[in-house]
Parts: sequence; C-alpha cells; structure tokens
Amino acid sequence: MPLIQIDLDEDVYANLHEQISAEVHQAQIDVLNVPADDLFQVFRTHAPGQLKFDPTYGGVDRRALVLIRITMVHLYSVNTKRALFEAIAARLEAIGVRHEDLLISVVENHFEDWYAGA
Amino acid sequence: MPLIQIDLDEDVYANLHEQISAEVHQAQIDVLNVPADDLFQVFRTHAPGQLKFDPTYGGVDRRALVLIRITMVHLYSVNTKRALFEAIAARLEAIGVRHEDLLISVVENHFEDWYAGA
Amino acid sequence: MPLIQIDLDEDVYANLHEQISAEVHQAQIDVLNVPADDLFQVFRTHAPGQLKFDPTYGGVDRRALVLIRITMVHLYSVNTKRALFEAIAARLEAIGVRHEDLLISVVENHFEDWYAGA
Repeated sequence: MPLIQIDLDEDVYANLHEQISAEVHQAQIDVLNVPADDLFQVFRTHAPGQLKFDPTYGGVDRRALVLIRITMVHLYSVNTKRALFEAIAARLEAIGVRHEDLLISVVENHFEDWYAGA
Repeated sequence: MPLIQIDLDEDVYANLHEQISAEVHQAQIDVLNVPADDLFQVFRTHAPGQLKFDPTYGGVDRRALVLIRITMVHLYSVNTKRALFEAIAARLEAIGVRHEDLLISVVENHFEDWYAGA
Repeated sequence: MPLIQIDLDEDVYANLHEQISAEVHQAQIDVLNVPADDLFQVFRTHAPGQLKFDPTYGGVDRRALVLIRITMVHLYSVNTKRALFEAIAARLEAIGVRHEDLLISVVENHFEDWYAGA
C-alpha cells in the first residue's frame, strides 16, 4: 500500500495526469514488486504561486515543481529507494516531465499503520 | 493533537463533511481518549480523476476513495490503532461511507514535533 | 530539503501568501542554517468549512487554522525544533497571522528518502 500523493501545476495535471499516474505506478511495480492493483494515488492541482521553489537550488535548473510524496512501510533498502527514484524520474522524463523539476519525499510507517477497506 | 487529513470526492464532501468530521472525531475520542476539544481536521476535495485507485485491490469492491491520514504522537499500541480504524470504519459506514472505500494511513512523530498555538 | 506544506483559508492566502512564504523561509534559514535557496513550499487553500478546529483547545483563543507541516531529515535537536516553531510564530505574528491560529507538525525522515531533481 504505498500511498502516492502528487502536487503539480493545474496545466501539467490537465495534460498529463493519466500518463504520470501510469508511469509512477509502473515504476512502483517494477522496483518495489508490489501487485499491479496496489494503486492509491492522490493528485492535487495548484494555481500559479502555490508551489514555491528556488529555480537554482542544488545547481539544478528548476522550472516547475512536481512534488511526489510516498508513504510506505519501512521495508526497503536505501538502494531500492534510489532505484525507485531513478525509475520514476526516467519514466516521467520520457513523457515530458523534467527530472530537474521533481521533488520526491518518502515517509515511512509500519504495517499496523494501514487500513485498506477490510 | 492527532491531525486528521481527509481527501475525498467533492460530492461526498458537500453531502457529508459535517457528519464525517463528527464521526471520525468521536472515534478518536472514544478510542484514543483525547479531549473532546482536540480537533484538527483538514478536508481536501477532489474532482473526478484526482483520486486514483484500483477497484478490486485486496479482493475488496472499491467504488470511491476516502483517504484519511492521521499524524499523531507515537504513543498507541497496535491494538489501539486497530480499534481506531474499526471505530472509524463502523461510524462512517453508518452514515453511508462504505468501509471498502476507506484508506487510512497513520504517520507518527513525537511530542516535540508539535506546536499548537502556544 | 525541508518540505513546507501550508494549508490555510483562501482569503489569508490571497492577502498574505508571499509574506507567509518569506517569513517561514527566513525562520528556516535562521534556525536550521539551511541554504537560502533551499526553498520548497506548497500552499493549499481552503473554502470555509474545510479546516475544522475547536476554538478553545488547550485554552487558546483560536479563530482560524493555519496548518504548517514540515517534512525534514531527522537531524535537529528538540531545542532547535522549539526555536524553529518560535521563530515561525513570531515572524508570522508580525505580519498579522495570530500565533494562536498556528498548528505546526513535523514529520521526519532520512537522507535516503529524498530526490531533488538530480
């Protein structure tokens, strides 16, 4: 039950939300080996001004902010997390979302912290 | 200071937000024994398409997604968390929110991670 | 890479978001010693009814809810966190956001839980 929350500009959502959803989900399947139907994603759209960032932080040329927050069970190695980030970044780049515009943040919890409808 | 964040469809919010608020809050009072005035809830509404889920994950018949995120101090046992989830699910079911449509996720922190106005 | 997420009423956002952004960011620079360009803030606006709170919890005279959530690496002492909260509260008070209306919540993760565009 990784929970994916994505904050992004309204126009990027309008143009790309189905593709972004599919690519992030496929990265999760490929790297975390979760079942294909383990899909929980929340998209939140933002008007200009609501997503604030510095265009050069870390020496990266940032032009937008696509924030992907992942809440998941503490279960994966550092290398697996890195592989997940790289898979998400590569897949989104291929559909026109610059990897420089991504901020991904993971917060972990435990199995007992979830209720999924049953 | 449990912080409750609820993401749900616009129409469910419009019809039920006061009842959802009251029932989730009562579950928290009953199970966690927090004071009745310890109420901090954020509702976020979503247009169709923003809440993405698989309608059959876990063998559950899902028709909507009502996401309840709880941020609270690491203080409660596994059994207490389960009791909280069951209480929320039962109370929401009674007002017409299917328990199959719920996703509840807890993230814990510590007392020093809160500032509540004083 | 502290990530700042702020939920607030639409009208407070409209009137004050640039000042709120600047003051929270300056508090972070002053207390956490992060680089000045380490800025990642997400504002989410709310219609009346979406932010629910008790007007007297904790004996505090609450009239609105300005929720500031901070996701950051587990790195700072309890005293540093308190100093951060006090700095945010004082700076926001100076621009007209009552400290009684603030709820600040920190959730921590680790260095390996971040991807920032590179």
